[in-house]
Amino acid sequence: MPVFEESLAESAQAVNELLERLLPLEDLPEARLLEAMRYATLAGGKRIRPSLVLAGAQLFNVAESCALRVGAAVELVHCYSLVHDDLPAMDDDELRRGRPTCHVAFDEATAILAGDALLTKAFEILADSETHSDPAVRSELVFELARASGAEGMAGGQMLDLVAERHTLDMPEVTRLQRLKTGMLIGFSCEAGAIMGKAPKPIRLALHAYAHDLGLAFQIADDLLDAEGDESEMGKKTRKDDAAGKATFVSLMGLERARAQARLLVDQAIQHLEIFGEKAEPLRHLARFTIERRA
Amino acid sequence: MPVFEESLAESAQAVNELLERLLPLEDLPEARLLEAMRYATLAGGKRIRPSLVLAGAQLFNVAESCALRVGAAVELVHCYSLVHDDLPAMDDDELRRGRPTCHVAFDEATAILAGDALLTKAFEILADSETHSDPAVRSELVFELARASGAEGMAGGQMLDLVAERHTLDMPEVTRLQRLKTGMLIGFSCEAGAIMGKAPKPIRLALHAYAHDLGLAFQIADDLLDAEGDESEMGKKTRKDDAAGKATFVSLMGLERARAQARLLVDQAIQHLEIFGEKAEPLRHLARFTIERRA
Repeated sequence: MPVFEESLAESAQAVNELLERLLPLEDLPEARLLEAMRYATLAGGKRIRPSLVLAGAQLFNVAESCALRVGAAVELVHCYSLVHDDLPAMDDDELRRGRPTCHVAFDEATAILAGDALLTKAFEILADSETHSDPAVRSELVFELARASGAEGMAGGQMLDLVAERHTLDMPEVTRLQRLKTGMLIGFSCEAGAIMGKAPKPIRLALHAYAHDLGLAFQIADDLLDAEGDESEMGKKTRKDDAAGKATFVSLMGLERARAQARLLVDQAIQHLEIFGEKAEPLRHLARFTIERRA
Repeated sequence: MPVFEESLAESAQAVNELLERLLPLEDLPEARLLEAMRYATLAGGKRIRPSLVLAGAQLFNVAESCALRVGAAVELVHCYSLVHDDLPAMDDDELRRGRPTCHVAFDEATAILAGDALLTKAFEILADSETHSDPAVRSELVFELARASGAEGMAGGQMLDLVAERHTLDMPEVTRLQRLKTGMLIGFSCEAGAIMGKAPKPIRLALHAYAHDLGLAFQIADDLLDAEGDESEMGKKTRKDDAAGKATFVSLMGLERARAQARLLVDQAIQHLEIFGEKAEPLRHLARFTIERRA
């Protein structure tokens, strides 16, 4: 395995171990809730968002134990959003990461509650004094994650996605949808290290710019995978956007231009990292990995 | 109107105005999400939890503007839990506060997302520097609200409630269920003032004890209203527990003993307030109101 992919696998492993500890299963009558939360969280996944948090935190010499907890919190938010998005009333998906989705493995009520509890847990982790010794940092992490996940972020993006089922979007609309639905959480992941490291504003803006380009590249790559990817390799249903008649970057630009655009965005993202020199190497690798992944 | 009820109505009005400002409706393609969040939040309700926050904050001379924001955050968590509990996969309720429930007025997907976004907004508000100048206080508020709402609190209690549909609970089990499902959020509401006012531990324990007894009394009163209350006056379906064959305080103790127990708990709750003298008068009134309310 190349060095970068080895270190990505190591990060994922560290995040998995922490998530396992953060969601302990106890012998209680409500244990089914924890079982569903663990099912939705511990089933693998590339852990790209925590890897971004870890790589960003390295720039500012933030303790890895802090960065891991913030990465775990972001991953919980990501997992909660998958559980709720998969529900019959939403995207009605039955397969995720190669296994039945949470509401299929458990039931709808449990899946709704598990999503709620995962989201809540994310904020509990960030506000916990174990995450960072400075309460101002903890408070800012909570505030920024909430902004990225709520009505003006991810939840707003999912609403746009639902609205899009009745109205075909154009390019600026698809771009805005994806910026909200996936871009804001990726943005938080990239900037969290700067918050933990109390980096000055201009430094943070460079990471913000990196995240902006990366988020779009990530989504174009997702659309390409949906259009071209292999269902068994990806562990979820593909060709869904096409079947639903949804406008995506691929439907609007075509495969060739979408691929070129993703490459361009990754190059652009990497350019924003210049001020960090060698230290940003992991973030550069992550940007390239984003469009090269097969699932 | 008696003085206390007048002041309760004033608190509710102040909370409503703040909630209105915290959930502004903008002309955006995802406006439907905000509409659903507003629908679920601004439809009235007694605002008992924010009133507890306000009354608790008065004990420590906390600025009303801070206490109102914390009260609003708790109310958002309460409203999100109602939206999700009312869903067809959960309690399947069609009427709430005299109006169609959120998923009936909108649709299931929008209701799920609106609940998610309300929960997220609550943490954003608490972590906002406008809520309190001390980030340690903000961080503690987030941590405690998350604990009260998540798998070890309200969400865990709702899971127990779902489990109870398949297994009849005994008295200790019903007590634990209700402590999680409603007691923990009431507990946070009562203790939030002490957090904002940085009260020493023993003082906070007195409020914790008050909240513990109050929470149980509140739930017994709810069970009594479900068993005896008038559907049109309450604006929601009654006799539901009985129809579902669910064990409640009323089914386990009978009407008479349940009423006596609620009165006893309120007296006990009030005794914990002695150390606060005159200043705790609003909390005493709130405790009595809890079991005298008609809806």
